[in-house]
Amino acid sequence: MKKGYIHIEQLRNIAIEDLEVEIVERKGQGHPDSLIDGASESVSRALCEYYIQNYGTILHHNVDKGLLVGGRSNPKFGGGEVIEPIYVIVAGRATSFVVKEGKVEPIPIGKLTVSAIKNFFKSNMRFLDPEKHIIVDYKIKQGSADLIHIFEKSKGIPLSNDTSIGVGFAPLSPTEKLVLETERFLNSEKIKKEIPELGEDIKVMGLRKNKEISLTIAVATVSSLIPDRSHYINTIEDAKKRVEDFSSKITDMDVKVKVNPADDYEKGVFYLTVTGTSAEAGDDGNTGRGNRLNGLITPLRQCSMEASAGKNPVNHTGKLFNVLAQKTADKIYEEVRGIREVYTRILSCIGNPINRPQIASVALVLEKNTSLSSIRTDIESIIEDQISKVTDLTSLILKGFIQLF
Amino acid sequence: MKKGYIHIEQLRNIAIEDLEVEIVERKGQGHPDSLIDGASESVSRALCEYYIQNYGTILHHNVDKGLLVGGRSNPKFGGGEVIEPIYVIVAGRATSFVVKEGKVEPIPIGKLTVSAIKNFFKSNMRFLDPEKHIIVDYKIKQGSADLIHIFEKSKGIPLSNDTSIGVGFAPLSPTEKLVLETERFLNSEKIKKEIPELGEDIKVMGLRKNKEISLTIAVATVSSLIPDRSHYINTIEDAKKRVEDFSSKITDMDVKVKVNPADDYEKGVFYLTVTGTSAEAGDDGNTGRGNRLNGLITPLRQCSMEASAGKNPVNHTGKLFNVLAQKTADKIYEEVRGIREVYTRILSCIGNPINRPQIASVALVLEKNTSLSSIRTDIESIIEDQISKVTDLTSLILKGFIQLF
Amino acid sequence: MKKGYIHIEQLRNIAIEDLEVEIVERKGQGHPDSLIDGASESVSRALCEYYIQNYGTILHHNVDKGLLVGGRSNPKFGGGEVIEPIYVIVAGRATSFVVKEGKVEPIPIGKLTVSAIKNFFKSNMRFLDPEKHIIVDYKIKQGSADLIHIFEKSKGIPLSNDTSIGVGFAPLSPTEKLVLETERFLNSEKIKKEIPELGEDIKVMGLRKNKEISLTIAVATVSSLIPDRSHYINTIEDAKKRVEDFSSKITDMDVKVKVNPADDYEKGVFYLTVTGTSAEAGDDGNTGRGNRLNGLITPLRQCSMEASAGKNPVNHTGKLFNVLAQKTADKIYEEVRGIREVYTRILSCIGNPINRPQIASVALVLEKNTSLSSIRTDIESIIEDQISKVTDLTSLILKGFIQLF
Amino acid sequence: MKKGYIHIEQLRNIAIEDLEVEIVERKGQGHPDSLIDGASESVSRALCEYYIQNYGTILHHNVDKGLLVGGRSNPKFGGGEVIEPIYVIVAGRATSFVVKEGKVEPIPIGKLTVSAIKNFFKSNMRFLDPEKHIIVDYKIKQGSADLIHIFEKSKGIPLSNDTSIGVGFAPLSPTEKLVLETERFLNSEKIKKEIPELGEDIKVMGLRKNKEISLTIAVATVSSLIPDRSHYINTIEDAKKRVEDFSSKITDMDVKVKVNPADDYEKGVFYLTVTGTSAEAGDDGNTGRGNRLNGLITPLRQCSMEASAGKNPVNHTGKLFNVLAQKTADKIYEEVRGIREVYTRILSCIGNPINRPQIASVALVLEKNTSLSSIRTDIESIIEDQISKVTDLTSLILKGFIQLF
Repeated sequence: MKKGYIHIEQLRNIAIEDLEVEIVERKGQGHPDSLIDGASESVSRALCEYYIQNYGTILHHNVDKGLLVGGRSNPKFGGGEVIEPIYVIVAGRATSFVVKEGKVEPIPIGKLTVSAIKNFFKSNMRFLDPEKHIIVDYKIKQGSADLIHIFEKSKGIPLSNDTSIGVGFAPLSPTEKLVLETERFLNSEKIKKEIPELGEDIKVMGLRKNKEISLTIAVATVSSLIPDRSHYINTIEDAKKRVEDFSSKITDMDVKVKVNPADDYEKGVFYLTVTGTSAEAGDDGNTGRGNRLNGLITPLRQCSMEASAGKNPVNHTGKLFNVLAQKTADKIYEEVRGIREVYTRILSCIGNPINRPQIASVALVLEKNTSLSSIRTDIESIIEDQISKVTDLTSLILKGFIQLF
Repeated sequence: MKKGYIHIEQLRNIAIEDLEVEIVERKGQGHPDSLIDGASESVSRALCEYYIQNYGTILHHNVDKGLLVGGRSNPKFGGGEVIEPIYVIVAGRATSFVVKEGKVEPIPIGKLTVSAIKNFFKSNMRFLDPEKHIIVDYKIKQGSADLIHIFEKSKGIPLSNDTSIGVGFAPLSPTEKLVLETERFLNSEKIKKEIPELGEDIKVMGLRKNKEISLTIAVATVSSLIPDRSHYINTIEDAKKRVEDFSSKITDMDVKVKVNPADDYEKGVFYLTVTGTSAEAGDDGNTGRGNRLNGLITPLRQCSMEASAGKNPVNHTGKLFNVLAQKTADKIYEEVRGIREVYTRILSCIGNPINRPQIASVALVLEKNTSLSSIRTDIESIIEDQISKVTDLTSLILKGFIQLF
Repeated sequence: MKKGYIHIEQLRNIAIEDLEVEIVERKGQGHPDSLIDGASESVSRALCEYYIQNYGTILHHNVDKGLLVGGRSNPKFGGGEVIEPIYVIVAGRATSFVVKEGKVEPIPIGKLTVSAIKNFFKSNMRFLDPEKHIIVDYKIKQGSADLIHIFEKSKGIPLSNDTSIGVGFAPLSPTEKLVLETERFLNSEKIKKEIPELGEDIKVMGLRKNKEISLTIAVATVSSLIPDRSHYINTIEDAKKRVEDFSSKITDMDVKVKVNPADDYEKGVFYLTVTGTSAEAGDDGNTGRGNRLNGLITPLRQCSMEASAGKNPVNHTGKLFNVLAQKTADKIYEEVRGIREVYTRILSCIGNPINRPQIASVALVLEKNTSLSSIRTDIESIIEDQISKVTDLTSLILKGFIQLF
Repeated sequence: MKKGYIHIEQLRNIAIEDLEVEIVERKGQGHPDSLIDGASESVSRALCEYYIQNYGTILHHNVDKGLLVGGRSNPKFGGGEVIEPIYVIVAGRATSFVVKEGKVEPIPIGKLTVSAIKNFFKSNMRFLDPEKHIIVDYKIKQGSADLIHIFEKSKGIPLSNDTSIGVGFAPLSPTEKLVLETERFLNSEKIKKEIPELGEDIKVMGLRKNKEISLTIAVATVSSLIPDRSHYINTIEDAKKRVEDFSSKITDMDVKVKVNPADDYEKGVFYLTVTGTSAEAGDDGNTGRGNRLNGLITPLRQCSMEASAGKNPVNHTGKLFNVLAQKTADKIYEEVRGIREVYTRILSCIGNPINRPQIASVALVLEKNTSLSSIRTDIESIIEDQISKVTDLTSLILKGFIQLF
């Protein structure tokens, strides 16, 4: 019997790749918004690990609000330095005390938070040294009683902490794939080896008009590796060519690439940084302001405003249902024939078990010769199955198997 | 002659109100994300006013990143208190010195920032006293040289500070209108007079399934005005009834209203607050995480991830182009017949004058008997006209004529 | 029977007023170090009041560390403004939760702290508005278990929290009196009415050489009340004359007065402030760095390094024993004949009841014709009596009867 | 010809070691007040080095205000951890920009500050890891124009930044020596090798009554090195014996040693720490609240309240004149016969060259058979000579040849 919350609907839309225009953005690994997303998420993970190791379960926490205040720097060809460090603060709530066998045990929130954030930066940035370039702070409070209440009153299925919505879609369009892969390519080990001058702060904006894609790429360069102006120019040209070559392997469309178009060589304007990210010089970041779960910002698509980074992976549906929606969309697209596009939208109800959404709605753009009725049951089964396994997502998230931004 | 950046396209979509499902959310006036949006925006406005008054022009600034760290409180029927104040910090850059006639004049950034934020809270919250309940802080740095460069090198049309996209659509669907108006109604002077117990932190989530809308409303109540449990229950029931009545005036659809569904009267769980916002007790906020420009979060619609609040209204296209896109959509919908839905998407190019977007793309769902060709010229004219007047938006924003969140 | 801890000793010293040189300083009411002393102490008092009102006893706390970071300002004749607010932070520990009848009651530490500090500034500074010119912050933690333990294990006499020393002496020398009274005079209601241009930040340094005293006075002036250069010069001359007149009533010695000697009228150097304190423009303060308990800094005298401000008045001997030593010195000097100078030095022992010091030592400079043996018993009685009443000091301190800085 | 500011006076005092009572304290290397003194001083030094290296001269700065907010920890036999890191903030002013050949060069204040503080902790604490256990912050502003003015208007001898007093005395009494050397002994490499369980946070309080000295020592122990209660007890007993042995080599007086007298083994109260300092668990510190220049707190002696740590060593007489006074006292005591005690008191005048004090006063306790007249000229020469070389102190301080706390 079909669950009452399942809903499936056909869209009469033209698939996005057949529209005349697409606009897609990716804020790369070292972008200030990505960095603070990563900082928030690293704290949630460190807390989860500690809670599990010590208490066998993940206790209540939510650290999905953060602020990165850009520093000040003085990059110059061949050198330069960070003048004022970046300031990173992660805020939220976490269970700070556990009563176990009558004794109060404190949780080392501060220690876990600071080391998680520093480790995140260490493993994501080659030239940004958290010990020298970042002040790491936090304001994490003991959770409010009511939320703890909700969190704990279920021994079985966790109860939704809020009424929030997760959205996913599949597949990525060619333009979306190109934008996503271009950033990954420029931040790949291979390219970092071959063109180490390219920093991690890479923003890719893709605009497709009919069969022509224009990629506008802003890439922070690493000043210490660039002795002079001509080296800079060569680096940027090299990057441009690599992306052009790379694009041609990904898509047949005509791809025009601009790298650092705000540069003005004659006026001495170069996108130089000491650390590989604009965060060193006044570009700030907030958690939840960057990429969605699929790694992209897709203003022409359905998407959720919820930040996934930093929310707890047990009952924060702002995170969990985004993951669930994405996985369900992927699964449906993979397993059911005749689908051009699938959108999933799953809405929780505060206080309900997380496997009891208010609605799990799927909207489909179908191939011409496919009828919804012929595939409805298959899709329902997939939705039901995915929702029934929603609690499995927690460990997948913790193991790092799921992209969050 | 048509500008090369204008693009118009027809969508074959079913209009959203004819789809089976809609999900729409509004974070109300006192929601932590709205509060920090308001704080960021108030700082930008105060800076603009000061710059204009003293230098005849708006100087470079960007304060679109902020963090509100929730406090701790102890609400109880008839009273309670804030135990730890809320902490609010706005970050960014602003021109801090002006060289005028050979003398360096400092800008009182700190003074302007702190008083702007406090005034914002004073005029938006009845029971949240910034002097008692909030620590207001800021980290605003002198802008980086490169951005200043871009900002200043145009004496005519300002140059885009970034490559970013604005999105707008029109009209609001009935469900969207209902969600928006319900929050406004509950935060109206009239209701605040009649049911002062209702706080300003009101979140409305609307789910439409076919012709039935379910509104889930979370409304913080003001503990000092609620002497006991039964008063609380009456207040919530009163709110529910008012919304039901109000809904029936807005829409013919069947509207089911739930208010504070996480309450559990038997277990003593009530949504009580001292100040009328959950920010007092651990609910945090980040700038740009709340409503879009139209006051809503509409995951099933096209929308921009850019935060409008706190960006400067001169050349920050993340703000300006959202306003431009919304106004253009509104204008097209109002003035051109035969349109069911219009989406505008305008992409800037860093360094280009703001009246030279990369693309200004309009996508349309048309009435059955309307052809795109018959209205194309009209729409083009509107787009061109709107873009040509983009610099007028600055003063409209400053005068407060434009809703930003 | 004499208590074993009492010690009395004669000094062969020349009384300080008969020495050829004395150097005495007073940091006035609005000096940054006095301001942060006052902030720390105001928090301790607010906590005491709350604890007493709600629990009938003063609970453990210690907030004797603070930092005032000076702001930035732009004073000019007839106006000016504070550009960056002053930042004030008080740190320490305080009992934050009380278990009463099985329920955990939170103490509103944050609320008490912030309002106490703001009120302190409001009542001590005419032109420094805490809401506009100061960011008030705090970092107050729950006390460590061991100290709470010590604090609570005595139901009778509180136990010393630390091994620390209090020092007092009597009487003040004429030079000391002059320095103390000069600042009080300049900050008196009368003078503030007659010369409102004089700010509260007044530092007086007195140097006596034989019968000649030179007073160097630095007084911040209030720019909004001083329209121009000549008004400033008149104000300073007026202040100088007043102090000269005032001095002649206090002492027969020749008093030379310099006011604001760092001014350089020709080069345009004036000691102008917007708010009446140098704290507005980069002069910082730390708790415990200003005046000792008697209102003075007397480097040629015995004195304690302990900060009195902010320590709890129940068992923090760094505060209590300074008060005790001063009161005992005063009492001895008042009640026993033949004494020119009395120094009291009282050393606590961590964990001992506060009426059981390690030593209560008195050192005396006697009149020529007085023998120690003739007054020893009287002095012993006074010491014993004062120590036996040490617990009474708590309420005297709370009532504000005792000067602390 | 004698300089007019020189003053010499004989005291009729009994030398302190012949009085019946002395009280002397030393806050050791790892005491929170010493740590924040060290942090402030390390920043001043780093700034000096940078200024000298880049501009050939020390530019204006003053970072003599700091705050260390203790963390929270959970020490237990054999382990434990820091739960909330220590928070360290250094405040003040520093020249942040230099105009050189028409170009503005920024000074990397933030980078220098953070790394100086971290390095200070690394080289002074074995088990306190600044990266894991401390959040290092700073609030250092550009200096106010007036002070810069004073600082720069002298191309020759620097001008005093303030009217402040330096005090020194010589020699140390046997009790003073004992207290000083005991702490140094316990923090010596040798003892740290033999009893590594003893932390760096060691406070020694010495009380001499006639020929009997009682030393009260509080020493934080390192929990990870102490597997259990009996190991702890042995460690403390070992420390006690070592100090007893050590004392007997320093003095013939009877020395009674108490180590950690607040411990209560039966109630489970031990002075355990994870990091070797009480700063990890709520004990806070302020710059300038610990030892005076000679490494001691001597309430029965003349002494200065000025903090030496963090002041600039060029024209901040609060620092420089303390050093000058101490060196002059030492020199006089070493070179002139017949002196039992010498006190030097040197008062600056704001705006005067630093070699033009208001007074340089020496007070002497002489041997019985010595007359002041016979040594007056020698002393005058020494004073004049020392003052004439006052500018040499700057580099001695920078080279670390001068103890400051």
